[in-house]
Amino acid sequence: MAQADLPKGTAVIGQSGGPTAVINQSLVGVVEGLRGGLQRSGHVTKVLGMRNGVRGLTDGRMTDLTNIDQAMLDRVSHTPSAALGSTRDKPDASYCGRIFESCRELDARYFFYIGGNDSSDTCRIVSEAARAAGYDLRCVHVPKTVDNDLMGNDHTPGYASAARFVALAHMADGMDNAALPGIKINIVMGRHAGFLTAAAAAARHEEHAGPHLVYVPEVPFITDRFVQDVASVYDKLGRCHIAVSEGIQDKDGVAIGALLMGEEKDAHGNVQLSGSGALGDQLANLLKAKLTPAGGKPPRVRADTLGYLQRCYPDASPVDAREARMVGVHAAQLAAEGKAGVSVNLVRKSTIGPNEAYECVAEHQPLEAVAAKTRHLPESYIKGHSDVSQAFLDYVTPLLGALPPFELLE
Amino acid sequence: MAQADLPKGTAVIGQSGGPTAVINQSLVGVVEGLRGGLQRSGHVTKVLGMRNGVRGLTDGRMTDLTNIDQAMLDRVSHTPSAALGSTRDKPDASYCGRIFESCRELDARYFFYIGGNDSSDTCRIVSEAARAAGYDLRCVHVPKTVDNDLMGNDHTPGYASAARFVALAHMADGMDNAALPGIKINIVMGRHAGFLTAAAAAARHEEHAGPHLVYVPEVPFITDRFVQDVASVYDKLGRCHIAVSEGIQDKDGVAIGALLMGEEKDAHGNVQLSGSGALGDQLANLLKAKLTPAGGKPPRVRADTLGYLQRCYPDASPVDAREARMVGVHAAQLAAEGKAGVSVNLVRKSTIGPNEAYECVAEHQPLEAVAAKTRHLPESYIKGHSDVSQAFLDYVTPLLGALPPFELLE
Repeated sequence: MAQADLPKGTAVIGQSGGPTAVINQSLVGVVEGLRGGLQRSGHVTKVLGMRNGVRGLTDGRMTDLTNIDQAMLDRVSHTPSAALGSTRDKPDASYCGRIFESCRELDARYFFYIGGNDSSDTCRIVSEAARAAGYDLRCVHVPKTVDNDLMGNDHTPGYASAARFVALAHMADGMDNAALPGIKINIVMGRHAGFLTAAAAAARHEEHAGPHLVYVPEVPFITDRFVQDVASVYDKLGRCHIAVSEGIQDKDGVAIGALLMGEEKDAHGNVQLSGSGALGDQLANLLKAKLTPAGGKPPRVRADTLGYLQRCYPDASPVDAREARMVGVHAAQLAAEGKAGVSVNLVRKSTIGPNEAYECVAEHQPLEAVAAKTRHLPESYIKGHSDVSQAFLDYVTPLLGALPPFELLE
Repeated sequence: MAQADLPKGTAVIGQSGGPTAVINQSLVGVVEGLRGGLQRSGHVTKVLGMRNGVRGLTDGRMTDLTNIDQAMLDRVSHTPSAALGSTRDKPDASYCGRIFESCRELDARYFFYIGGNDSSDTCRIVSEAARAAGYDLRCVHVPKTVDNDLMGNDHTPGYASAARFVALAHMADGMDNAALPGIKINIVMGRHAGFLTAAAAAARHEEHAGPHLVYVPEVPFITDRFVQDVASVYDKLGRCHIAVSEGIQDKDGVAIGALLMGEEKDAHGNVQLSGSGALGDQLANLLKAKLTPAGGKPPRVRADTLGYLQRCYPDASPVDAREARMVGVHAAQLAAEGKAGVSVNLVRKSTIGPNEAYECVAEHQPLEAVAAKTRHLPESYIKGHSDVSQAFLDYVTPLLGALPPFELLE
């Protein structure tokens, strides 16, 4: 039931940052949550979608979602990428001024922003600026990121589907590598956190299945050690299947990929790591050069960069689809309870273990707890310098949905 | 019914060339076809799988498939990549000698080889050498290739699943490009033929959906024209989504990718085009350089190389899975009918058109008709210099299986 002291006006919803396979589930969840709550109680009189996040809000590009029909919402929910469009804009003081101007014009009182840590920071900035200006704007952040690097979340909506894609890709590509033996590198998304790369390890469906080596940003990447690791597996199996995070760093914390990629940065100061094959190609060339026997032929080395398909391939994890919808609905419910300046988070209620039934619920935390912070793979999920632990596999397996039963002829 | 004058002995089966999502369907098809035919009639007394194609045959690495159980076969059939392992070896005269030696030792009389045009050439060489040596070896080639470049086939098993992946990838990635507008290049497999790249056009689910430009090897790639094409779409839509074949060539027939990639060649003289992001990165850098306004910021340009997932992603087209099994069964049936030195081919019996019910059957052609030849996109499937025709879309659509209904919020 909505509280009596809630403001009355328009609700605005935006999507921000990199799209995912299920971010539209969250959008639809907010719309449905409002319908069942603040819209029914009369506090929300209009629901507007911002085109390209806060940019559309300031440009006056909005989509009216007040009476959008349920069949359309269902189709949108199954469509990957951001149905309202996304943005990487980060508002400064003058940008915030334009946002309030727009909010006043629209009589906006509820502000829902779906995105990752940069987007939660946008939500925090808008929320604090509104408070300072004495404008009653109820801001709720809805989590989303394939990187799984939001603080205070067991995992974030979007991660499980991306992890499913990475696991399936490595399962199938590992079979390809077994059929035509050689050295194969796959570069996986994840600017600072190794969660997505780690999910490649879920591809190991039998004893010798790849990936044989897994490199995450949390462990310093030492080139010579990498070459030795690969040589050792290659000598033993006649092949080597490798998952490497795009965000691997040297021992001084300098991203190996960024060193190769030049200077392009977004508004949040992030260097471009995705959308290029340079890191994989450099590592492949390194291995060819170092592992060619004297007077012999170089080994067969290939590199693929899994690229944007990781965040948009239309085969969502069913768990992820359900939870992404749930966090959207919960955001609307929080607003109806009078909560503001908060971020929805996913909290696992079940114990992590190979035989535990999985249960996860939506709760909330202060925006400050998540905004512009980065969660990393905990040490307990890392094994040595080139693998993940069983604890990580127990953590990630329930998120992925069913994986196909592959069969080998030995 | 098997003919009376057939030799009695062992059947050997091999897989060769790049794996696909459904090549194991064909392997299982041959095994099942033999069980229902030559094995039942007593002509085939043993069924052996070559590990890594002819290489395993000469090395004595064989897997006994004579009594493999059906449940195992079913699981193998749904597993992507080559369950017996693959090879890119091409036998010369002395290699052929070792093949016969192995065949004599195994009392092999039936030789089934599943692969593309290089593999059909291997099959032809073995078949002719056997005839010259007076050794009764019945060779049947079973078609397979994601490139769809085998002569005399409406399409080849493996193509439809790869085309499905390319279409789904472009659907989803096109939505991503619409959400965060910029210029996006996807590099698609296809050394000489543009069929797989052309399938990207099946991703266009609405008027402005990408890919907006499609570049195939059959049309000379002119760099300046490419830059103009992109600029024109970008000016109009504020974004541009582009599918480019890894095999694009300049007007002298020199592969643009090969020029960048160095000199690594396989045993068939093919330069490495896959397993590197170099072509996409070069094209992206070119566009950034040419499309940066004077004194302004470069446009957002990204490139992904879809890579090996195109040939192994475990989401086979149902049509492809069925047909790949069918060509395997048919190969065994042809041998039972006394046919040898032939290649199975897929022949479409239905008319190609938007409202036609699809029907395709397995027939056969002489090995010489297909061996080491390359089929290209017919002119009628090409539209201008940067698109495919409606006739191509009518051709490819029945092969892909159902594509998800995406919905946009406009």
